[in-house]
Amino acid sequence: MTATMREALAEFLGTFVLILFGVGVVAQVTLGGGANGQYLSINLAWGLAVTLGVYVSHGVSGAHLNPAVTMAAAAWRGFPWARVAPYIGAQVAGAFVASAVVYLTYADALTHFDGGVRQVSGALGTAGIWATYPQPWLSTLGGLIDQIVGTAVLVLVLFALTDTRMTAPQSNLGPIVVGLLVAAIGMAYGLNAGYAINPARDFGPRLFTALAGWGGEVFNAGNGWWWVPIVGPMIGGPLGGLIYDVFIGKRHPHAG
Amino acid sequence: MTATMREALAEFLGTFVLILFGVGVVAQVTLGGGANGQYLSINLAWGLAVTLGVYVSHGVSGAHLNPAVTMAAAAWRGFPWARVAPYIGAQVAGAFVASAVVYLTYADALTHFDGGVRQVSGALGTAGIWATYPQPWLSTLGGLIDQIVGTAVLVLVLFALTDTRMTAPQSNLGPIVVGLLVAAIGMAYGLNAGYAINPARDFGPRLFTALAGWGGEVFNAGNGWWWVPIVGPMIGGPLGGLIYDVFIGKRHPHAG
Amino acid sequence: MTATMREALAEFLGTFVLILFGVGVVAQVTLGGGANGQYLSINLAWGLAVTLGVYVSHGVSGAHLNPAVTMAAAAWRGFPWARVAPYIGAQVAGAFVASAVVYLTYADALTHFDGGVRQVSGALGTAGIWATYPQPWLSTLGGLIDQIVGTAVLVLVLFALTDTRMTAPQSNLGPIVVGLLVAAIGMAYGLNAGYAINPARDFGPRLFTALAGWGGEVFNAGNGWWWVPIVGPMIGGPLGGLIYDVFIGKRHPHAG
Amino acid sequence: MTATMREALAEFLGTFVLILFGVGVVAQVTLGGGANGQYLSINLAWGLAVTLGVYVSHGVSGAHLNPAVTMAAAAWRGFPWARVAPYIGAQVAGAFVASAVVYLTYADALTHFDGGVRQVSGALGTAGIWATYPQPWLSTLGGLIDQIVGTAVLVLVLFALTDTRMTAPQSNLGPIVVGLLVAAIGMAYGLNAGYAINPARDFGPRLFTALAGWGGEVFNAGNGWWWVPIVGPMIGGPLGGLIYDVFIGKRHPHAG
Repeated sequence: MTATMREALAEFLGTFVLILFGVGVVAQVTLGGGANGQYLSINLAWGLAVTLGVYVSHGVSGAHLNPAVTMAAAAWRGFPWARVAPYIGAQVAGAFVASAVVYLTYADALTHFDGGVRQVSGALGTAGIWATYPQPWLSTLGGLIDQIVGTAVLVLVLFALTDTRMTAPQSNLGPIVVGLLVAAIGMAYGLNAGYAINPARDFGPRLFTALAGWGGEVFNAGNGWWWVPIVGPMIGGPLGGLIYDVFIGKRHPHAG
Repeated sequence: MTATMREALAEFLGTFVLILFGVGVVAQVTLGGGANGQYLSINLAWGLAVTLGVYVSHGVSGAHLNPAVTMAAAAWRGFPWARVAPYIGAQVAGAFVASAVVYLTYADALTHFDGGVRQVSGALGTAGIWATYPQPWLSTLGGLIDQIVGTAVLVLVLFALTDTRMTAPQSNLGPIVVGLLVAAIGMAYGLNAGYAINPARDFGPRLFTALAGWGGEVFNAGNGWWWVPIVGPMIGGPLGGLIYDVFIGKRHPHAG
Repeated sequence: MTATMREALAEFLGTFVLILFGVGVVAQVTLGGGANGQYLSINLAWGLAVTLGVYVSHGVSGAHLNPAVTMAAAAWRGFPWARVAPYIGAQVAGAFVASAVVYLTYADALTHFDGGVRQVSGALGTAGIWATYPQPWLSTLGGLIDQIVGTAVLVLVLFALTDTRMTAPQSNLGPIVVGLLVAAIGMAYGLNAGYAINPARDFGPRLFTALAGWGGEVFNAGNGWWWVPIVGPMIGGPLGGLIYDVFIGKRHPHAG
Repeated sequence: MTATMREALAEFLGTFVLILFGVGVVAQVTLGGGANGQYLSINLAWGLAVTLGVYVSHGVSGAHLNPAVTMAAAAWRGFPWARVAPYIGAQVAGAFVASAVVYLTYADALTHFDGGVRQVSGALGTAGIWATYPQPWLSTLGGLIDQIVGTAVLVLVLFALTDTRMTAPQSNLGPIVVGLLVAAIGMAYGLNAGYAINPARDFGPRLFTALAGWGGEVFNAGNGWWWVPIVGPMIGGPLGGLIYDVFIGKRHPHAG
């Protein structure tokens, strides 16, 4: 087995775990009608989802779990461009398969909730369990800014947390801090559009819902929102890495 | 004293601590009527219960605290099959005795809550403090899937967290991450049936309630639910370990 | 300066920090009428209060911060009996002075809340900000059991967390786990009587309220409750340590 | 590039991250009307904001991120007085720029919330997203005490956490504990006036709101409150450091 195949398997399983928990908690809070969790639960569980997904995959693939992170690593950290496509493919596939497992596990709950009629939006809408949708008052430009800012700060801090010349967490505890970072993004930047900040996290599950009964409406909703959580993070990720390097990384006395 | 006896004592005490906190928090939230905690409290305290139970026992027994973990360890990690029965016996016994301590500590509160008439379900039902019961809309197949998925992801991530070739937490801080893992399972997979994911955690307390005043109804309720949180985890645990090994463990360059 | 004086200063300051946060969060939640925190905030902040108090004092005194811990250490870990009294005195004094600082900081809020008439109980009662009071339905025996169980599990787990032959947290991160332990006790054993589990934490602030305007009623309330969070923990602490040693500590192959 | 310039860039970026998350979470909770977070979310996210801001900057500048910390370091820890002004300038600038990014990201949400009419206070007031304002019943003296106490305990514990003769967290995990410290302050001392405890955190964003549409009222509101979260912390920070040194730091057997 080649290194790239091994890494793709790890990215697949890591993103699978990420989405299993991340989409799972939104399912529980939504379908439970508030009795089994709240918005804070979503923030905390998404953070933990990242932590656990990173632990599962980091030793093999570096645990990107996010095409925006892969892009930033390729742009600024020497990650081979040839591996970008396999990584992204594995991430999207892992997110897709996890979406199916969440669906299977919550099939009874879904049908109890919506009477078996899958709806994208409205009081009985459930597509938002899998993919993100914007607030009705959010402009497309506002959405792009939201996704750029959220992903930029994600990668900015990630670059700090992995800069061993600085105060990078040791004892293999970095994944906890990365999870806290995502929890914080969810607490502070989840209002506009549900903090996708990860094209694989959004597109994989959206594609699943399109095929599993919600239909093409998942691509039309929110004024055709689906491309924003893809394009925004792909801009924001490399941008955040650049900001870190300009202010800190390249300023180090021993920096190249 | 033989090593097996010493380990059984540790599994007993570790599971005792696990259930003391885990059943304790459900008692507090249920009997307090929402003024002393919420669903998120249950998730967090169950996570902490695992962390603390692991700290108490890990140095001696490896802190399985769960027959599904013991089965997975025997199936894939060379844990001696001869010790499976003593471990499981000690786990169930620890859960049973802890159930009695929770009952003793909350005896006044119980009687204040239900007027002294123990009821399994309904507005004044309290059996759910000790053992899990499914949502009324959950099918038995859905329940099995729920327990298999929840326990599979538990063991899948556990195998990653203890794989020292990868990014296993160091400085003896792994028990914190294991607790976070269980908290995340509770936030994302607690809606269907209360995330038992541990036959000892469910059967020991259920047996206690059967003997302590709730009667045989605890085995009949939920369409005879009691065997699902036993069988499901015993399937899911080894399955999750297998998935880890197929995607990561066996893919390691130095893997056997 | 003698070692004992230095240690007493550390116990004083550590318990001061403990109570500053612990009583402070109850003040905020109570006086804020629910808009500035909830029961879970109290659990989390009390846990953090312990963590921070331990960090402040541990390097000098070992951070008991609790007469029940000091008693258990003297009974089972060779802590000199001659230092028990200075430790307890410093703990109570630290709790008393911190109570005064909380009072000073929240003087305006208190008067806004109760119109300047200090009341122990009732809708405008505020004595419960400082000391614990039992639920009306709790018997004295039930209260004693509550305090014994809560403190026993505290010391049982503490003994595990400081047993370096086992899985004691390293990298000076034990204080975090100790705080999580207290948070878990609050989530699972706070319903009956507010989880004092520490005579200094309860008596020091109660004495302060008696002198600062609430009067002798703080000793009469709850059917003369005040002695229960003193006697219960003093029994429970050593008992919990004994249980740890019987099941784990004395079972170690190299145990004495 | 001089060391001071490098450090100022780090303080700028660290405080930028601090405010991006800190002001961001208040924006989300306020503009979301409670559906996207609660007071506890604010406490947790501010704590994480500190943790992440410290990770970003600590390796270069020591991560003060707060003029009160810089003052205490200069007063008691030999931090060069000549660098105090550059540090404070960078902190305020970072807070100001982050305020603008929060504004940009939440521009649509703001206009949806207040109809485009920026108001300092009242039901549609939003200035409190950026800077702190006191409760109507808080006296100016009470506010000063609040800020002195909150900042004193911040620096008191910070001095303990960085005292390597004691139990300072290792493995580069100190930033997590510092974040927990700020979370605890928010849970226990946020009621009176929103726990600024940091002149840069309060003044930078306040200045931004004055210029961005809320006008001079941000300096008049709360009976001219704006100077209290500047003066209080500048007193409290050095005071807290002094208390640590009197009780612990100077008592160490090897202390100077």
